[in-house]
Amino acid sequence: MLAEIITIGDEILIGQVVDTNSAWMGQKLNDIGISVKQITSISDKREAILTALNEACSHANIILITGGLGPTKDDITKHTLCEFFGASLVMNDDALNNVKEIFKRFNRPLIEVNVRQAEVPDNCQVIQNKNGTAPGMWFEYNDKIIVSMPGVPFEMVGMMEGYVLPELQKRFNIDTIFHKTIITAGLGESFLAKEIEDIEDGLPEHIKLAYLPKLGQVRLRLSAIGTNKEHVEKEVESASGLIINRIKKYVVATEDITLQEAILNHLKVNNQTLTTAESCTGGYIAHLITSIPGSSNAYVGGAVTYSNQLKQQMIGVKAETLQAFGAVSEQTVTEMALGALATYHTDFAIACSGIAGPDGGTSDKPVGTIWIAVASKDKVIAKKFLFGNKRLQNIERTATSSFYMLWKLMNNIATEEML
Amino acid sequence: MLAEIITIGDEILIGQVVDTNSAWMGQKLNDIGISVKQITSISDKREAILTALNEACSHANIILITGGLGPTKDDITKHTLCEFFGASLVMNDDALNNVKEIFKRFNRPLIEVNVRQAEVPDNCQVIQNKNGTAPGMWFEYNDKIIVSMPGVPFEMVGMMEGYVLPELQKRFNIDTIFHKTIITAGLGESFLAKEIEDIEDGLPEHIKLAYLPKLGQVRLRLSAIGTNKEHVEKEVESASGLIINRIKKYVVATEDITLQEAILNHLKVNNQTLTTAESCTGGYIAHLITSIPGSSNAYVGGAVTYSNQLKQQMIGVKAETLQAFGAVSEQTVTEMALGALATYHTDFAIACSGIAGPDGGTSDKPVGTIWIAVASKDKVIAKKFLFGNKRLQNIERTATSSFYMLWKLMNNIATEEML
Repeated sequence: MLAEIITIGDEILIGQVVDTNSAWMGQKLNDIGISVKQITSISDKREAILTALNEACSHANIILITGGLGPTKDDITKHTLCEFFGASLVMNDDALNNVKEIFKRFNRPLIEVNVRQAEVPDNCQVIQNKNGTAPGMWFEYNDKIIVSMPGVPFEMVGMMEGYVLPELQKRFNIDTIFHKTIITAGLGESFLAKEIEDIEDGLPEHIKLAYLPKLGQVRLRLSAIGTNKEHVEKEVESASGLIINRIKKYVVATEDITLQEAILNHLKVNNQTLTTAESCTGGYIAHLITSIPGSSNAYVGGAVTYSNQLKQQMIGVKAETLQAFGAVSEQTVTEMALGALATYHTDFAIACSGIAGPDGGTSDKPVGTIWIAVASKDKVIAKKFLFGNKRLQNIERTATSSFYMLWKLMNNIATEEML
Repeated sequence: MLAEIITIGDEILIGQVVDTNSAWMGQKLNDIGISVKQITSISDKREAILTALNEACSHANIILITGGLGPTKDDITKHTLCEFFGASLVMNDDALNNVKEIFKRFNRPLIEVNVRQAEVPDNCQVIQNKNGTAPGMWFEYNDKIIVSMPGVPFEMVGMMEGYVLPELQKRFNIDTIFHKTIITAGLGESFLAKEIEDIEDGLPEHIKLAYLPKLGQVRLRLSAIGTNKEHVEKEVESASGLIINRIKKYVVATEDITLQEAILNHLKVNNQTLTTAESCTGGYIAHLITSIPGSSNAYVGGAVTYSNQLKQQMIGVKAETLQAFGAVSEQTVTEMALGALATYHTDFAIACSGIAGPDGGTSDKPVGTIWIAVASKDKVIAKKFLFGNKRLQNIERTATSSFYMLWKLMNNIATEEML
């Protein structure tokens, strides 16, 4: 069963917002065995919507549309849907009650444009919106299912989880898709491919292996499609077993988790704790850790020591060290890691200090110069990195590298190996 | 001039990665006056690539493709491009030298699959890749320009900035597109629309107004297209002037910046400083602030006080307060804000504590219960929020709400107003 996702909105095309709806929908559809064949983002213009609908009908059986249902004048999706289906707009009582209730709850007067949000094409089935005013619409048209939902992520999510996904599952007797991901670190894509070339060549036609490289890590994803769920899973597990066995020293995890999740799992199993002392990443490392449910079991918190003053006050970096070597130095970052470890009484600490940019570089220490230190009770390892001149990329790379250094420290893998 | 972006990769369709390349490319193309008509994400399968190329040729004059150029077997873009153009693969010497140099620099042996990365269709002009091994390819075909680039973001960015954008600018005599964004907070989309209905109705045909709502904020974007740059800018500025004047008490900024940027600007102008004490957001607020270049002028750093122990140790929350009211309470979050302000000697502080979920809720304090406090030297304001049960959404909303509360505190706007 093939689906196409259409996201409507000029803000996506001009790059003002990143389309995260599609990724979420792709994942959920995949989980229930529906393959997404294409994701299409278009302008909220009549012709663009009509073209995309016609093309989508030639690609897929299920078409999920998000966006273009707001109350304001830039939203013309509903009128265009009427034109496409040869339908007319009618007022839907349930949708109108929903709009009224929401306005009542927030104690706002109901105005004409909001009332019109409850109008829907007369050939659709309404999907109630529990999180907003625009109703969703389910159409059946020439053997296709076409669903239109609001673009606000949590409104779309509410409709997908509450109605669309269960309904699609009920309707279709779908092939099973099974994915298995192996996270590796320390070996490049092409070297990994060479190591497991014979295994890959021996895979049956319906099992596919993909390499997804990302900053020092490569995710290997095995995907298989078939009618018998158990059989498909077994085949994939057996293939992944061969791969894992071949490249075991590069395997960080055998499920689709991040490096920081692998670290937290390791900490929990060993009943250990972690803290952070961040300068150039300014809280991003802490954020990546605390984004994970249950992280509070191992992560106690940490310091964002942006100013030199706070480096001294919070985690005891010596004024002389800062004076003699500067904030971006092996000495400072080592004192930060050891200081955080001692001050916050944990088993492990991550510290970093660098010049994230775009300004602040010197000939000595250009933008992108980053020092990272990781410390355990017995050991501290510091390493210098030279990244580029993009601030957000430097922050991202510093975080990833720091997790990688900690992961190696925890697993007693020498620093020289695997970078 | 119209462009279409095609991103290739199963990982996008199954939602394993979010397509951020397209947003970046859309923004940059727009900046030089090229409108993106459609963004299409497809599988790395021959048929999907051929269909997308054919459809794109019917929509647009410029087609930019990313992805599908890795050395491993899941990448078949180059062969499909050869088929589409009726071309053959040939070895490109410059590209091969680039591959060799990269492998030499990283001291890695060169293997067959990497050598093959230097092969390109014989009808293309090669775009050198300064950040990786896969060359970019520029094709001219039936009055269309088709460019294929790697999917790794910084490799694509390098080629776009170094070659593709300047080349497109040189080639075309393009209409000017001008955008102006007004950030508002405190009034919903439909109410804003009603306030400025007559202004919107009076806009000339070629000026478009879009409403982009996001968690308590609405961005208004005026876009105009025309041949005379100065004239277009003047028209948009005049329309935006009318709008700003009408809704001034809801205007946070008159450029496309975030609330946190507006806050930092305000702090810098007034020579003031800020700190943070985060529990449930775990560093995310600090990260959003420090993502902004130059934030170190106003932001000194702060505490991620995930554990109760660190709430006491770092910012002096009293054990009795935690005991009597719990970590998620008005009393605790107020002590956090005042404690951070006093400990780190700043003019303003943000503090938050809540139950981000998915676990940890009680009947009293369900998941999504969040307390936020903002403090200045004369005033502290605490407010309780009840968000949903999604961890990342709760973190995001807490951060946005805290910036909004701080922004109001800084601007002496009463808390009751505008939420």
